[in-house]
Amino acid sequence: MSQKSETPQKADISENDVLVAAPVKDRRDNEEIDAGLITPEQIEDFALKDDYALNPQYISLVIDAADRGDGLRLRELLDALHYADIADLLGFLSEDYREEVIPWIPSDALADILPELDDDIREEVIESMHTADIAEVLQELDSDDAAAVFEDLEEDQQKAVLAAMPESEREAIVTSLAYEEETAGRLMQREVMAAPSFWTVGHAIDHMREAGDDLPELFFDIYVIDPSHKPVGAVPVSVLMRTKRDMVLSTLMDPTTEITVDMDQEEVAYIFEKYHLISAPVVDASGRLVGQITVDDIVNIIQAENREDILALGGVSDIEGRDTGIFGMVKSRLPWLLVNLLTAFASVTVISAFQGEIVKMVALAALMPVVASIGGNFGTQALTVAVRALSARELTAANAARTLWREIMSGWLVGACVAIGLAVVTLIFWHDAKLASVIAGAILINFTMAALAGTLIPMAASKFGIDPAGASPIFVTLVTDFCGFFSFLGLAAIILL
Amino acid sequence: MSQKSETPQKADISENDVLVAAPVKDRRDNEEIDAGLITPEQIEDFALKDDYALNPQYISLVIDAADRGDGLRLRELLDALHYADIADLLGFLSEDYREEVIPWIPSDALADILPELDDDIREEVIESMHTADIAEVLQELDSDDAAAVFEDLEEDQQKAVLAAMPESEREAIVTSLAYEEETAGRLMQREVMAAPSFWTVGHAIDHMREAGDDLPELFFDIYVIDPSHKPVGAVPVSVLMRTKRDMVLSTLMDPTTEITVDMDQEEVAYIFEKYHLISAPVVDASGRLVGQITVDDIVNIIQAENREDILALGGVSDIEGRDTGIFGMVKSRLPWLLVNLLTAFASVTVISAFQGEIVKMVALAALMPVVASIGGNFGTQALTVAVRALSARELTAANAARTLWREIMSGWLVGACVAIGLAVVTLIFWHDAKLASVIAGAILINFTMAALAGTLIPMAASKFGIDPAGASPIFVTLVTDFCGFFSFLGLAAIILL
Repeated sequence: MSQKSETPQKADISENDVLVAAPVKDRRDNEEIDAGLITPEQIEDFALKDDYALNPQYISLVIDAADRGDGLRLRELLDALHYADIADLLGFLSEDYREEVIPWIPSDALADILPELDDDIREEVIESMHTADIAEVLQELDSDDAAAVFEDLEEDQQKAVLAAMPESEREAIVTSLAYEEETAGRLMQREVMAAPSFWTVGHAIDHMREAGDDLPELFFDIYVIDPSHKPVGAVPVSVLMRTKRDMVLSTLMDPTTEITVDMDQEEVAYIFEKYHLISAPVVDASGRLVGQITVDDIVNIIQAENREDILALGGVSDIEGRDTGIFGMVKSRLPWLLVNLLTAFASVTVISAFQGEIVKMVALAALMPVVASIGGNFGTQALTVAVRALSARELTAANAARTLWREIMSGWLVGACVAIGLAVVTLIFWHDAKLASVIAGAILINFTMAALAGTLIPMAASKFGIDPAGASPIFVTLVTDFCGFFSFLGLAAIILL
Repeated sequence: MSQKSETPQKADISENDVLVAAPVKDRRDNEEIDAGLITPEQIEDFALKDDYALNPQYISLVIDAADRGDGLRLRELLDALHYADIADLLGFLSEDYREEVIPWIPSDALADILPELDDDIREEVIESMHTADIAEVLQELDSDDAAAVFEDLEEDQQKAVLAAMPESEREAIVTSLAYEEETAGRLMQREVMAAPSFWTVGHAIDHMREAGDDLPELFFDIYVIDPSHKPVGAVPVSVLMRTKRDMVLSTLMDPTTEITVDMDQEEVAYIFEKYHLISAPVVDASGRLVGQITVDDIVNIIQAENREDILALGGVSDIEGRDTGIFGMVKSRLPWLLVNLLTAFASVTVISAFQGEIVKMVALAALMPVVASIGGNFGTQALTVAVRALSARELTAANAARTLWREIMSGWLVGACVAIGLAVVTLIFWHDAKLASVIAGAILINFTMAALAGTLIPMAASKFGIDPAGASPIFVTLVTDFCGFFSFLGLAAIILL
């Protein structure tokens, strides 16, 4: 996805200009816009807010035009947008409005828009297109984007689209899809600039001037290869250009970090981030250069992985976007809550076992959820830190023991502060020193368990190849709920009653 | 931070080779390594695991050498590492071991390592250096990295270092620090390749060949400027190189997206991500080109912002790294738990008000935490989705109402499933249809409140310029705890007793 086409440029248009031009709330001013009283340039300035997010008032203009079925107006409004903003706009519209707007997307923007869209919306756009147009759009894209769009087509469509493509493009897509999902093979583009190590700078530049379409639209390094087509180094384009024509590439090149086609995309992202790479060569099992990955694709991967982690930690199992339907939301949230229902009955069982104590001293019922919930929150803190460290590979066997010890120590310190606070409050409300010491003791026990569970559970998950963000919160909560109720009610039974 | 120096290359070394070479657990094999029985190349292969994370066994070798005070061995071990891996290694060591290892870091790697380190560790490394060396290292760095390292020095050191630098470098640092933290001005490097629009490709290439040190080490676009030094477009270096020498730049250039010096770094990252930028020109208030930002810096920003969001959602208020001390951990976690203690007393108050009911029917005490905690988990799900959408700018005034409505609908649907499940379980255990209907009703009420709180609270925080990830979880939990206990006990009081 290395093309960089026209990006929007916010002109010096003041808040006042915009407000005069199009305060959406004011019907008369909207009519002025509709009457052509503002120019396309003004629409362009108005479409984005100063922070480059889409202006909600601009979106209202689109919705108004869609309501009136005013296609020419829609085309005019869409024409003013960068392709990335059109993709963003579709995400803000409800399905009904998308249906109105999609036919009016400028056809020259379609190729660039498709890779930007969420799966559901992309499907809607594809449905509105003819097979021949889909085939044409795919040929315009770099091979990684073309494959990503193609794989979401239905099987019938895939066959029809392939049939409508020239041989070479067809092969490119089939080859790309032969790699497993979320691997470097899927992520890479096959177009790459490679040169034998004995070439001079002049050689390489002349070759590039002639090569034309076989080269990627944009590239940042040229890869130096040996006779068996294995990469032996890379020369940044900016270095190449500043060097005299008679220099030999092998004297210029830096070592490169090779990516293998079957490497997981998360690992690829880690390598790019760690070594500040802009692009890297991809090699097959025999070490031959088969493509390249560029950093702009990595930015998307990093965001996707982070999004997955954040949602998983929040107990949202499927990826929810702004266009996920109600049933999609139910599907992504209910499973976690049902498991939670099961674990909750561990607490119910513990509490029921102490019914007699609660009836004798009803203050226990009021205080026990505090012990469980504050312990749970400390467990969540430890868990969050551990999950982030694991995903950044900052927590490994090398520092596991030290990390666990630090967590336990901080659990005792933080727990002691909370225990003292709770004990004081309990004294003030219930005037019962024994009750205060029971709750303080229970907090210390529960914080120790929370530190252990919050650290060991994600470590164990990671060890067994399970995503720590997804599986851990349930079990950490189970531990802190169970221990919270059991330690508090148990201590109460021993000391108080 | 655009330099890309030697990146490590994993050779074809099998698991067996490594195990024979250095199974750290086996003292005899370690002695073999110490005796020089494996070569520096083998150390290099051994240092990184297949996933490019540091090998814990390699770290053990470092620790062994540090224990023995074997400086030459340390130097040998460190020599095998890429600078990014040395930085990573320091993060894995405890403070005592870092003190042993730091003096043996190869001096030519120091400049590159400094910008990679966390603040605390960087301070330790700087403390071990002479003022003259610090000044020299800063001059080797691009201006953005130099400023980042410089600003963490103590005031006395800053003065001494500035005095030891040549005029031009001194000015560069002072200028960079004049911009506010976390703005584009701080992030940018002042080195930039610019050319007037009337130049030809040949002109530009000849200029670059001659310019030498004033150009950035690596660059990806050259910026085309008008006579008043304002950028009017950009030409990717790979395009420039493929074009005939007599083409005029103004006919080649694409429009660019300008970044202003005072733009927040989060906004800069959003623009890079949205438009897939590799580099962008930075302009001052009058629109003149003053520097550029490259995508590799943006990757760091994106990771830092995500890390902040994840930790904040988990209730960790300061940024905790693997080298944060115990007291740092307490400081980052205790505040949230103390606030939580206050909000917990909302629950205590509610429960205490219903003491009479609980004594009459002790099953209420066992079931009430379930209503509160499952409601809290649904609220956390809604909150997590909202916070992520807000930070991706996918949730704005344009779709706020629709988002809220979807959350309420999904709250009712998910709530209905959970309510039925809980009612059935309650019937089985307590054979009390009224109790079952009370808990089902309370769940529905609490899920509605959770959907509202989980969506509206982060939206409101964002509206008022407060970080939604940081402030929202406390209040959402407060709402779901309070409503959970109140609705369940209240309904019980009305219907059951």
